[in-house]
Formats: sequence, C-alpha cells, structure tokens
Amino acid sequence: MSDQQPPLLPTNAIAPDESLQAKTEHWFEYPVKAQPHHTDYGGIVWHGSYLAWMEEARVECLSSIGMDFADLVKLGCDLPVVELSVRYHRPLRMGMSAIVKTRMSYSTGVRMDWNYQIQSPDGSELYLTGQVTLVTVDREKGKIMRQLPPAVKDALLKLTR
Amino acid sequence: MSDQQPPLLPTNAIAPDESLQAKTEHWFEYPVKAQPHHTDYGGIVWHGSYLAWMEEARVECLSSIGMDFADLVKLGCDLPVVELSVRYHRPLRMGMSAIVKTRMSYSTGVRMDWNYQIQSPDGSELYLTGQVTLVTVDREKGKIMRQLPPAVKDALLKLTR
Amino acid sequence: MSDQQPPLLPTNAIAPDESLQAKTEHWFEYPVKAQPHHTDYGGIVWHGSYLAWMEEARVECLSSIGMDFADLVKLGCDLPVVELSVRYHRPLRMGMSAIVKTRMSYSTGVRMDWNYQIQSPDGSELYLTGQVTLVTVDREKGKIMRQLPPAVKDALLKLTR
Amino acid sequence: MSDQQPPLLPTNAIAPDESLQAKTEHWFEYPVKAQPHHTDYGGIVWHGSYLAWMEEARVECLSSIGMDFADLVKLGCDLPVVELSVRYHRPLRMGMSAIVKTRMSYSTGVRMDWNYQIQSPDGSELYLTGQVTLVTVDREKGKIMRQLPPAVKDALLKLTR
Repeated sequence: MSDQQPPLLPTNAIAPDESLQAKTEHWFEYPVKAQPHHTDYGGIVWHGSYLAWMEEARVECLSSIGMDFADLVKLGCDLPVVELSVRYHRPLRMGMSAIVKTRMSYSTGVRMDWNYQIQSPDGSELYLTGQVTLVTVDREKGKIMRQLPPAVKDALLKLTR
Repeated sequence: MSDQQPPLLPTNAIAPDESLQAKTEHWFEYPVKAQPHHTDYGGIVWHGSYLAWMEEARVECLSSIGMDFADLVKLGCDLPVVELSVRYHRPLRMGMSAIVKTRMSYSTGVRMDWNYQIQSPDGSELYLTGQVTLVTVDREKGKIMRQLPPAVKDALLKLTR
Repeated sequence: MSDQQPPLLPTNAIAPDESLQAKTEHWFEYPVKAQPHHTDYGGIVWHGSYLAWMEEARVECLSSIGMDFADLVKLGCDLPVVELSVRYHRPLRMGMSAIVKTRMSYSTGVRMDWNYQIQSPDGSELYLTGQVTLVTVDREKGKIMRQLPPAVKDALLKLTR
Repeated sequence: MSDQQPPLLPTNAIAPDESLQAKTEHWFEYPVKAQPHHTDYGGIVWHGSYLAWMEEARVECLSSIGMDFADLVKLGCDLPVVELSVRYHRPLRMGMSAIVKTRMSYSTGVRMDWNYQIQSPDGSELYLTGQVTLVTVDREKGKIMRQLPPAVKDALLKLTR
C-alpha cells in the first residue's frame, strides 16, 4: 500500500450498493474492570482507556452475530474508525467494574454506527456515553468498499430478520 | 475520596466566577512520529493512540504559557476530559511524522475547549480534526471548581493581553 | 511526596520483619483475548501489551485470596514492579484466546515473586514465560515497608495454611 | 500466514550465516517526558509505559545509523522482541523528563541485544536498567532469517568500521 493514502472521508457522498439496513435490536453488554494499567495519576480510568473497552465490546458484539473480526481482516476487509464522540459523565475509579453497552446500526451501505453507554453493573450510574462510526475499507486498495464481502453481508442480513 | 463520585456533567448550568475569557491566538505545534507501539494490525496508527498525542500537545501547550501540569495537580486541581470528538480523515502509517496543532479557548469559567488538527509536516495532508473539552476539578472534593487557583488564573490572564 | 524519590532497590539487604512465607499452590488462570488494540503492524500482540494482561492476572489472583488491590492502595500500601523478565516464545495473533497462568511466592518479607506462563486454552502452545517481582511500599513515605499492613498479612497467612 | 506460528525460540541453536559482529560504540540518547497517559494511580509512570519508550529509542537509534524501521518491515523483515528484562530502580513521576540511553550489540547472526539505562537529564539519578533481545524474522514465512536483507547487513557493517 502506498504512503499516499486516499482520504477515508467524506463518507456522505457514497451511494450504498444496496438498500441493506441492519441494526442490533438489543444492547450488547460487555463487562469490564478498571485495572491499574487503565488508571492515571488521578486514580481514575484515563480517558483514552475507554476506547480500548469500546473496541473490545464492538469486536465481541460482531462475534456474537457470527462475524469474526480477525477473519474479516483475513478476507481483506477492514473497519477503521472514522468518527468518534464521547461524553465522560463520571469517573470510573481503580477496581470498579462496569458494563459497556453497545448497539450497532448499519444503514448507508458503508457506515456502521455504534452507540455506547458505560454503566455501573446495577445500572444506577452512567459513566460514559458515546458514538463511534466505522467504514468498510478494502485493505488492498486502501479504499472504502462499495460492495461488502458476502460473509459480512450475510451476517448483517441476519440482523434484519 | 468516596467511590460515589459526583457527576462531572452537565457543565452548562455552571455560572462562571468571573468573566475571564482567554484563548491561545496561534496554533501550538507538537511534532509526533508513528512508532511501532502506536500501530495496530493494519500497520496504521490505532485510533486510540491519537488521544495520547493530543494530551501531550495539550500539556506542552499549557507549559509554553507557564502552566506546569504536574504542578497544577500538586495544587489540588485537575483537568479531566469531559467531552471528546474526533474525525479521522486519513490514516497515519508506521514511521510517518506529523504535527499535532492545537489551540485553546477558555470562556465559560470552568470549561477549556481545545481544537486539534493533525497534519503532515508540510501541511499538505490532514489526518485528524478534533475537539476536547476539559473542566477544572478540585481533586480533594471531586467537584468542578468555581474558583480557579490563582496560578492558573494568572497564566490564563496572560493570554488575554 | 517530593520529586526526590528514595530508591526502590536494592531489596536484597532488607531484613524481613517476620518469617512469613506464603505461596499460591496452584496456578491461577486468567483468560485473555488478543483484541485489535493489543496488536501492532505485524498483526500480532505488541510485546508490551502482555504486561497489562500479566498485571490483570496478578490483581485477580490477589482478589481470589481476599486482597482487593484498590483497597490495599487506599490503606496506603502499594505494590510497584521492581523487576521483570519475559521470554516471548510464540506470537499471539489478533483474535486468538489464551490463558495467563500465574503463581505467587512471598518469602523475604518484602518481595513478592510472580511466575507466569501464557498458553493456548488447550495448553498445547506456550506463548510467554516470565517473572515479575513486586515490593510492598508505603505510599505516604515512598519507602519499602518492613511491616505489612495487617489486612495484607492476614490474606497472605491464609495461603500458608 | 497460518495461525500455527513456528516458535521464535530457542535462538541459541542457530548458526549465524556469517561472522558479522557489530555494535554501537556510544550510548544513543533519546529524551522522554512522563505525560499523564504514562502514569498510573500512583502518579508515577506505569511499569509497562517504559517499554514504549525503549522501543522508540531503538527505532530512533536504528534510524540514526541509516536503518528505517518502517522500510525494514516493507522489505519483509521484522524484529520482534524475544527476551526482555528490566529493573526499576526509582519511579519517574508525572511531568519529569528523562533520557533513555541505549546501546546495541549484534553478534550471533540473528540476535540483536539492546542495553538500556534510563536516567535523569543530568545523569545523577538512575530510573531503570534493562536489556531487550530482538531476532530478525522473515515476515512472509514467520521464521527467523539466517540471511539478513542486504540493506540491513550494510547498515550494520557500517557500525563495525
């Protein structure tokens, strides 16, 4: 792949190859715990550490609907993050457990939007809300894919039934 | 500090203790290089690694106007991130250098907004744009400060002249 | 705490406050999975990512014998790493699962030695072997503790029975 | 590359393809600063953060003798870490600067040994000593290379003159 990467964005001008719309109906829940390496000098989880948890929740959610992320990459497809927004409501302190809740919606052919809520296990405290947008990229060409690999399409179609 | 942290947000209801407004006039520039540990399986910088660079640029920008971040923390003040939004335009590949450009505006008494652009050294390529919002928190009480520590206020006031 | 930190080492000259000897008899097992953020450009787990897993296994092993790490820190005690050695036998690729096995021995009053093996879930592949040494430090004074906090001593004594 | 990776070790049984011996005569010096994201709950640099700095120093040292690490990877060669040992002498606190000193010796055909000292800028304080061993691996085959790529050999030969 050349060093001159084509731009990943804007994605809004892209015409989807089909009218596939899919979304996970329920929140997928992924438990996490604030370990020492997640914390910073304040004894709370460093703001960037949450992104690793959000990625893990995404990978495990895809896995739960039959899409193995490592297989996807082997098929020549990648799902880079192109947009990210996060609100940090309350800090999570070392040793505390939490649930990363995520829900995916896929509707424009190439964009996948993931919504997030990170909560206390009993649901009474809200630590973070956020949204992450991924696009489907052809790893070889470094370009956004207009045609999804059949395996990905099939997994997503399962969601719409 | 108790485990029951007070919420950091919303910040919009907060009345500033004074009408202090400050912003850095020019972009502060912080050079970075994509090292192996920043990359992921795709050979590009992992999306979370940029947050570390953005934090470093912030700390060095504050330092350039006379605010030492470690001193600030010793004074009992913290500046946690409460909001974050990022657009990833082009991937940065292993070995590539870039400039993190940042500019701060402080205007509501307790919020500091930082704008970001990450560019190629010659300015021809744009990799990332983003915004990060910090609030000033009293570390002891875990609460948003309505009175800035004098040292912080002085450093910020210097910006307005 | 002043910037002039006292040295953490050497630890060999330290006379233990008592003849407490303890070790976990069985390997504690902690399952992990190689997520995208753990990998580097090679598609394998970055060598430093293993240290986070090893720390997590340590914290969960202590927890399993009744020592909550966050509580320990609140009691004014810390357990910094003072020595570390690792051999990387085989790479772990993105998407692969593994078991971090660890076993602790505590015998010189202030040192805790942790042995590690990271293996495939079926035990047929060995990815990493390592050893990590911690010391018990008084957080206030920044000095190695010669007297363990009673709660820690009690938890360790349980191991010897 | 298959999931069944060949073992990277033992390396001691490997006969070097030639009697090439090389080492950097002087310590290469790489300045670092403890940023918030490097720290943990203790306000000191997390023990794993040092590995990122050590890698950066290695990459920049190789670059200083004409070996661009990203180019090396593009040539199909990789330099994974196979062994690592570190002693943490004193903690580095948030905001402190330090110098990562490293020196490479290459003598057995496939192993590169890197020695490390992390010191205060004035040399009066020693924070860390360590050693890291790399091997040269053919990325395609996932096997240790017995023949170095000519570009690598040339760069190393320059060191012996």
